[in-house]
Amino acid sequence: MAGRHIPCKRPNSADRSSITMTRSNPIERLECVIPYAVDHPFPLENLPWTVFSTSADEKPRCAVRIADSLLDLALLSAQAPHAFASGPLSDQRVHELFSQSTLNAYLAQPRQVHRDFRAFLQHMLSPGSQVFDSNSQAVLQAALIPIEQAKLHLPIRSGDYTDFCASKYHCTATGRLMFNDPTRPLEDQWFQLPIAYHGRSSSLVVSGTNFHRPNGIFRTKPGSSDVQFGPSKRMDFELEVAFVIAGSELSPLGRPVKLDQAEDAIFGLMLMNDWSARDIQAYEMNPLGPFTGKNFATSLSPYLVELAALEPFRTPSPTAEHTPFAYLDHKGNGSTWDVRLQAFISPSPPATSTEQERVWTKITDTSLKHVYWTASQMVAHHTITGCNLKPADTFATGTCSGPFDEPHSEASLIEACKAGRQPIPLDPPKGSTSTETRCFLLDGDAVKILGHAFDPASKLHIGLGECTGQILPAIEL
Amino acid sequence: MAGRHIPCKRPNSADRSSITMTRSNPIERLECVIPYAVDHPFPLENLPWTVFSTSADEKPRCAVRIADSLLDLALLSAQAPHAFASGPLSDQRVHELFSQSTLNAYLAQPRQVHRDFRAFLQHMLSPGSQVFDSNSQAVLQAALIPIEQAKLHLPIRSGDYTDFCASKYHCTATGRLMFNDPTRPLEDQWFQLPIAYHGRSSSLVVSGTNFHRPNGIFRTKPGSSDVQFGPSKRMDFELEVAFVIAGSELSPLGRPVKLDQAEDAIFGLMLMNDWSARDIQAYEMNPLGPFTGKNFATSLSPYLVELAALEPFRTPSPTAEHTPFAYLDHKGNGSTWDVRLQAFISPSPPATSTEQERVWTKITDTSLKHVYWTASQMVAHHTITGCNLKPADTFATGTCSGPFDEPHSEASLIEACKAGRQPIPLDPPKGSTSTETRCFLLDGDAVKILGHAFDPASKLHIGLGECTGQILPAIEL
Repeated sequence: MAGRHIPCKRPNSADRSSITMTRSNPIERLECVIPYAVDHPFPLENLPWTVFSTSADEKPRCAVRIADSLLDLALLSAQAPHAFASGPLSDQRVHELFSQSTLNAYLAQPRQVHRDFRAFLQHMLSPGSQVFDSNSQAVLQAALIPIEQAKLHLPIRSGDYTDFCASKYHCTATGRLMFNDPTRPLEDQWFQLPIAYHGRSSSLVVSGTNFHRPNGIFRTKPGSSDVQFGPSKRMDFELEVAFVIAGSELSPLGRPVKLDQAEDAIFGLMLMNDWSARDIQAYEMNPLGPFTGKNFATSLSPYLVELAALEPFRTPSPTAEHTPFAYLDHKGNGSTWDVRLQAFISPSPPATSTEQERVWTKITDTSLKHVYWTASQMVAHHTITGCNLKPADTFATGTCSGPFDEPHSEASLIEACKAGRQPIPLDPPKGSTSTETRCFLLDGDAVKILGHAFDPASKLHIGLGECTGQILPAIEL
Repeated sequence: MAGRHIPCKRPNSADRSSITMTRSNPIERLECVIPYAVDHPFPLENLPWTVFSTSADEKPRCAVRIADSLLDLALLSAQAPHAFASGPLSDQRVHELFSQSTLNAYLAQPRQVHRDFRAFLQHMLSPGSQVFDSNSQAVLQAALIPIEQAKLHLPIRSGDYTDFCASKYHCTATGRLMFNDPTRPLEDQWFQLPIAYHGRSSSLVVSGTNFHRPNGIFRTKPGSSDVQFGPSKRMDFELEVAFVIAGSELSPLGRPVKLDQAEDAIFGLMLMNDWSARDIQAYEMNPLGPFTGKNFATSLSPYLVELAALEPFRTPSPTAEHTPFAYLDHKGNGSTWDVRLQAFISPSPPATSTEQERVWTKITDTSLKHVYWTASQMVAHHTITGCNLKPADTFATGTCSGPFDEPHSEASLIEACKAGRQPIPLDPPKGSTSTETRCFLLDGDAVKILGHAFDPASKLHIGLGECTGQILPAIEL
């Protein structure tokens, strides 16, 4: 095959014209036997998956979230087997799959089962289904666990976690900061393929897991040849979205997943915070990429939202700035989802206050729709060599920064504070005139990531939940 | 903590004076109820672990290799429960652990159980044990599966696989080739910490698994700005050793493993071939490291050899060329194992020949003892940030190239053929005057990696088995 050289168009802000959303038909809303506000983030149209336990039953098991409750599918299938009689999985199978401590066994089912079971649950919980008559209402009520009684766990056990770097804006901004060149363009290679690295899956943790500031080796100052060992001084967050792989017939070793079939390999998505020790990472990453600068903790939201729930929010992906090779070419028909993504930071509250009294300063307010490479392109590229996928494998977008000319577009602190040159003012506590600022995270600081999609006409609100974490002081060695 | 600048001594060949082996006491050999030659690679002192199936029983289960057989522990514990009466695991537990299709459940046991069970098996199979009297000899014989009847499987399911780059010689040589500078030194950073990247664990395959040449994007020529898509033209192998993590009490998130306790987290080792598509890797790896250039297949030998089996071959590790930070400082007492490592390549045999008639050309003949960073240093560095470990996690050394002045020291083709500048003559088939050469691997080429340790005085021979694979043509897209 002859070589070819593809000139790349450079980033500009005009390309957003292609990513406005068009909706020709109004969204029809589902009715549910469980009452909730029309704009509740967990309506019957959402029905995200999670794993939970309670103080009364500490064994983690699987559930879907509906309104302010979790529907305990392990319990419901045991107590009301008849409810599953007309579904795609027998009550025994439902019980077996959802009594487990992760969703992995369910994710390994055929994709058609996932589609059918989602539709079945939606039907089961609709007023017309009559699955729960007055005699069995009590069983349903018993299986609805109020969310405040539930402890949420990481719902998946990822065999492999891959972190892409798919936002043009993030990669452009960090390259410019790293080389201290405010007009530096992205490398041609960036537009040829979605760059990525394998991440550490053992340290994927669920939202709410606090962790110690990592120790490591880093330069005393950026660019210095002097190095030191100690707690990282440049702790950052990265707001990301993680796609979770599923299916019983994923491509075996040697068989690439074609672009137009790639989305079928994705079950759903979660919010992710790819915590980063910038100084450790900068020192170690040449030439093998990020390693200990990111291996200490990566946080995921507890909810796995199916792609089907986001279908009303599908939107064209950003226009390709050059034509990629055929295996990555959407031919103008690529799509993504308009999911609003927000990140907030908060200093440790004063000793006299509680965690609830934290004051949150918004850093990021952007959308998944700005990410240049699509989830399908990530899957197609990852497997083009013949690499096999397994259920619960996780593909993250990388930092989801938005267009430079939009406020709060930066999805990490290093971008927001210009690598330390522009400290960020923190919102003062009520009644205070505090002038505290941040460049990188201090001990006690917490980060909260939120995600949701919303349609004003129908008030359909698909919540992704939240992904939080707090930095504890480095441990004594 | 104040910064400090550490001048690095540069690579030279004099440092090998420190890595000669000293053995003050002769090795005492064990006696075994199963007869074998004194220099058999799988004597009672070795007893490596594997997973196998047979055509008569296709369910994979766990075994230890002894001489020319596998001891089926699932079968033996079912048929002769009394044999385990005095061991550290009840016969039910033995049966439960070893009926599984991987060693993961066993690897998750306390390390003391591993030590005790190894000693117990060695005692069980010694003439003095009398576990198998004339009545139960038949049961033992039935559980000994002749190796030629066994199909060997990958014995572990790795949650995470990390590939280090711990050979000074490999990293120096590839840096010089990449920058076309024959005197280029390693970066200071290389001597500060063992660099590494997370690898892809889904595509870890067992020896004997053939795979298709990967497709990808690469430069038409090194350094060119023209790129093309297609089958890799620079397929290579990398001879490596993989260390496998085990234990019930591995450090939780946040707790680094101390250097002097790190070896206790390692169960044993396996041979590895980290197949690499050099052209794909070179194009994609800036700045996030290797990704699809290595994610299509990584081969492991089917035997997991416990570190205890290699204790007689322990030897001091290479002298540190500068003093590392305390968490990596062996203070001159670091050690490794003198394991001979060899790699061979073979072209596809003519159509009229069989696989057995392949002619193998030796590329590599070196030792694990030359690898600069120790397995303990890898564990200590990986966890210094608080990264947690899980049983069956795999840490590979990276390409185990030896000193430049030793013949066959290069443990990859890119080093052996000087990045394509010095084609390697292949050994001709018997009676032929073929003058075939290789730079990178062609379709049909196979690679075989061997490893063993040997003590001439006692004739103790600890075989690591072999790790083979053949490259099939790229699939049609």
